[in-house]
Amino acid sequence: MQEFDLIRRYFAPLAGAGGLGLRDDAALISPPAGCELVMTQDALTAGVHFFAEDSAKHIAQKALRVNLSDLAAKGAKPLGYLLSLLMPVDTTEAWVADFAAGLAADQQEFSIALLGGDTSKILGSLTLSLTAIGTVEAGTMLRRSGAKMGDHLYVSGTIGDAALGLQVRQGHLPHHAHLLERYLLPQPRFLNDTSHISAAMDISDGLLQDAGHLASASGVGLVIEAAKLPLSAAAAPYRTSHLETIITGGDDYELLFTLPADALLPVAAFPLTCIGTVIEGSGVTIVDTQQQPLTFTRKGWTHF
Amino acid sequence: MQEFDLIRRYFAPLAGAGGLGLRDDAALISPPAGCELVMTQDALTAGVHFFAEDSAKHIAQKALRVNLSDLAAKGAKPLGYLLSLLMPVDTTEAWVADFAAGLAADQQEFSIALLGGDTSKILGSLTLSLTAIGTVEAGTMLRRSGAKMGDHLYVSGTIGDAALGLQVRQGHLPHHAHLLERYLLPQPRFLNDTSHISAAMDISDGLLQDAGHLASASGVGLVIEAAKLPLSAAAAPYRTSHLETIITGGDDYELLFTLPADALLPVAAFPLTCIGTVIEGSGVTIVDTQQQPLTFTRKGWTHF
Repeated sequence: MQEFDLIRRYFAPLAGAGGLGLRDDAALISPPAGCELVMTQDALTAGVHFFAEDSAKHIAQKALRVNLSDLAAKGAKPLGYLLSLLMPVDTTEAWVADFAAGLAADQQEFSIALLGGDTSKILGSLTLSLTAIGTVEAGTMLRRSGAKMGDHLYVSGTIGDAALGLQVRQGHLPHHAHLLERYLLPQPRFLNDTSHISAAMDISDGLLQDAGHLASASGVGLVIEAAKLPLSAAAAPYRTSHLETIITGGDDYELLFTLPADALLPVAAFPLTCIGTVIEGSGVTIVDTQQQPLTFTRKGWTHF
Repeated sequence: MQEFDLIRRYFAPLAGAGGLGLRDDAALISPPAGCELVMTQDALTAGVHFFAEDSAKHIAQKALRVNLSDLAAKGAKPLGYLLSLLMPVDTTEAWVADFAAGLAADQQEFSIALLGGDTSKILGSLTLSLTAIGTVEAGTMLRRSGAKMGDHLYVSGTIGDAALGLQVRQGHLPHHAHLLERYLLPQPRFLNDTSHISAAMDISDGLLQDAGHLASASGVGLVIEAAKLPLSAAAAPYRTSHLETIITGGDDYELLFTLPADALLPVAAFPLTCIGTVIEGSGVTIVDTQQQPLTFTRKGWTHF
């Protein structure tokens, strides 16, 4: 495979207008009037963020979606992305074709285009770095700060599926297609109306740890009722036995946000569940049905 | 080292306004009125783009500067950057401190700030991906296309130093501090006035190959006179013996641009040398002092 042939054949067809056909080593972005740009960059590397033997298509889609999830958490509308793809020397052209097909599918799904990037060999594991770009009306970007005493705390979708899916993948739990799928393929949760949300982030490193980041950025405490955590049918049997996995495992890519008690919940195509409240103080307390605090041995996922 | 401590201690102090203290996993960019944004992303990995044993400071600065060089080639004013840093598990905190110091020095040198990014361990070699963001007045971004018949072809600075420096580094040529330095530390070439430039790019993969990209994007041919290539005092002795290294070796990070014959050359703090002309046709011809074409066995640097 020649570098420039590869780009022409597989990546240039994915380029949007700002990508200039990937011929200029740069993207040109004309922000719509009255808009600000939101940019987020997440890298993924085999053996840490995914398994090297995952399908190229899934790897491509996971890389895109973890970045889109960050845009969704900012209330941003996705525009496009830049991609650095670092491949071991034994990577085949068929792998690249499958990878590009994964990107193409998600570009259509999320109405985005490739704007630029870089390819190279790497001495070591397959590694990707992706920068996603979105737009927000000026002044409306959601932040982790902003949660206020008395606000309600919400999560989108269901929690814990991906962390349980990883355990399935590792052979620690019995096979379950839904859990595996949720580990392989995150679902960015874009909301149409974020105007009432006081603080938001996406959950990537475990609910407990990430809720801690939101609490700290907002200068508040959070109380989460374990019994209110929305679990999928596949995860429900593990609510008691694997509660720590569910609330400290990574890869949920669900939204975590706060809303004033009297505000209307946004309309969404996925569940939005109130799991707790914002209190004075600091940190995150998980409580049982008797309002007794639960303790956990680990806090969340870390990349070192 | 804990991931979040590391970010707080070494990277948060580098964050500019749009980086939101690196606490929000996203950057917020408000483009100045009448401006467009230029974005470029280059990844660097040990054993391909630099040596793992290069100083952390040099690695940081090279990663920044190769991206700034792309902005310079677009006529863009640099604003900031996002950084993915993927470190082998044996990376020390002292290494990270040195790396951050390299970023800090160049942030001051080029008036830019860190806006976001990501850190993780990697199974394999140290790898970085950097996205640099710059601004141009709307409609003024330089492109590779645009060179016209009769335009003069220019390069900035001197050619071949870094490729010869790599040979010094590998023990193929005798020690020379200037050549080594030019390999380790590219110098982005920002021009104050790019209004007359018809086409531009930076030379990263060898003059011959990159000139080919400019010719192809512009739909023209280029003739380069080998005798006119500007060489440093350190490289001059190799003009004949290592001409192929000089014009096909990578890592120059000099500007290559075309200018109408009657246009004023931009004022610059570094040399700008006319090395040839734009002709009808296609491809790049390197000629000797008798205007005879020279041939080379390889075309340029490729990352596979």
